[in-house]
Amino acid sequence: MAQEIPGYDYGDESLPEAPYDEEDLEKLQAAVLFDEGDEEALREAGEVLEPQIEEILDLWYDFVGANDHLVYYFTDGEGNPDEEYLDRVRARFGQWIRDTCNPPYDQEWLNYQYEIGRRHTREKKNRTDDADAVSHIHARYLIAFIYPITATIREFLENGEHSEEEVEAMFHAWFKSITLQVTLWTQPYVRAGDW
Amino acid sequence: MAQEIPGYDYGDESLPEAPYDEEDLEKLQAAVLFDEGDEEALREAGEVLEPQIEEILDLWYDFVGANDHLVYYFTDGEGNPDEEYLDRVRARFGQWIRDTCNPPYDQEWLNYQYEIGRRHTREKKNRTDDADAVSHIHARYLIAFIYPITATIREFLENGEHSEEEVEAMFHAWFKSITLQVTLWTQPYVRAGDW
Ligand code: HEM
Ligand code: HEM
Repeated sequence: MAQEIPGYDYGDESLPEAPYDEEDLEKLQAAVLFDEGDEEALREAGEVLEPQIEEILDLWYDFVGANDHLVYYFTDGEGNPDEEYLDRVRARFGQWIRDTCNPPYDQEWLNYQYEIGRRHTREKKNRTDDADAVSHIHARYLIAFIYPITATIREFLENGEHSEEEVEAMFHAWFKSITLQVTLWTQPYVRAGDW
Repeated sequence: MAQEIPGYDYGDESLPEAPYDEEDLEKLQAAVLFDEGDEEALREAGEVLEPQIEEILDLWYDFVGANDHLVYYFTDGEGNPDEEYLDRVRARFGQWIRDTCNPPYDQEWLNYQYEIGRRHTREKKNRTDDADAVSHIHARYLIAFIYPITATIREFLENGEHSEEEVEAMFHAWFKSITLQVTLWTQPYVRAGDW
């Protein structure tokens, strides 16, 4: 998969080591009440979501596209979206749904979380795709997106063969994982020592 | 209420103006899909939660108390919790549930969000209560707590006279508001210009 998706560098040896390790991860997982039941629920969620990935991405891209102050981050700052950039990121976003649903998470996964975080900031944004777009995504929207990225997944989880109780378990596992990941992605934004 | 709760300074003229205004708030509300229906649902939630505030706080304090790496922030860093500090913060935490359920949110509310954010950081932590505790709450746990503070409220929302659909609406309004507030609280943590 890695070779097929431009710019998808999960597991790549050239990536920097994340400034957090598996011990940090365990403590964060305790803070979001993430346990082995959630890992199992996420793997099930992965099966339910796989055939719906394009629909999910349509919904998310439509939401971003409907808000000038959000689609802004895919533009040159003067109203011109970089279409190739939008497409290339979309493919990696789809793969990220798969990766989210493929725990347990380990140091290699943490290293790619760090990379994803940096790709949202002025340190690394645009570089992967040689994009012609504004240089930084403000932390406020990265964190705020925990809501839409969590809430919108529920209807897709309901489209499987699972009971209401199982859907609820998958939804909560997804919510925990999104909160955990966005938390990890904010590290490059925060003042030294404060994260 | 303000006079009765030590250190609760909502609306106090000595508070600094927040570095975000109502226009920023509107854009963030769009990002979390927060609208007037959510304001109404939160006001209903306030009525359901009011008689249960002590129980909610018991649950949250038990959760923090059960995790050494979380209760740490109420200690001197050597395992000794500051009990008076825990108590005084608890009273303000209860009032915060009421304030969360009392939208619409305005500039005065934003100013207090900024104050709450700062009180979690080395800029302002401990000062309100003259507490003898570690000097800073790491951003990672502030953001991670979106999950437990959201998920645990649901059972309390179910204890009212509301239909399953209304409970769901109150739950989502709460989830949006928590995400919004934690987003605002992270401003003092983030590098200049990056928030
Ligand atoms: C919960 C919040 C978010 C999630 C889950 C998310 C997910 C992702 C993923 C998976 C990628 C590709 C990572 C890779 O290169 O492999 C990505 C990149 C990107 N995202 Fe986000 N994102 C979030 C918030 C935002 C927000 C708020 C914006 C702005 C509206 C945004 C805009 C972008 C852009 C422009 C890129 C490309 C960055 C680059 O130049 O490499 N994202 N995001
Ligand atoms: C969703 C996340 C959180 C919420 C909703 C929340 C809520 C609050 C509220 C309402 C206050 C009192 C504000 C006031 O002074 O009026 C407060 C203060 C405090 N919180 Fe949090 N909090 C969160 C995360 C955390 C975390 C992760 C910790 C550490 C385990 C923590 C520890 C404290 C402490 C020590 C204070 C007192 C700060 C001071 O010295 O003034 N909070 N919090």
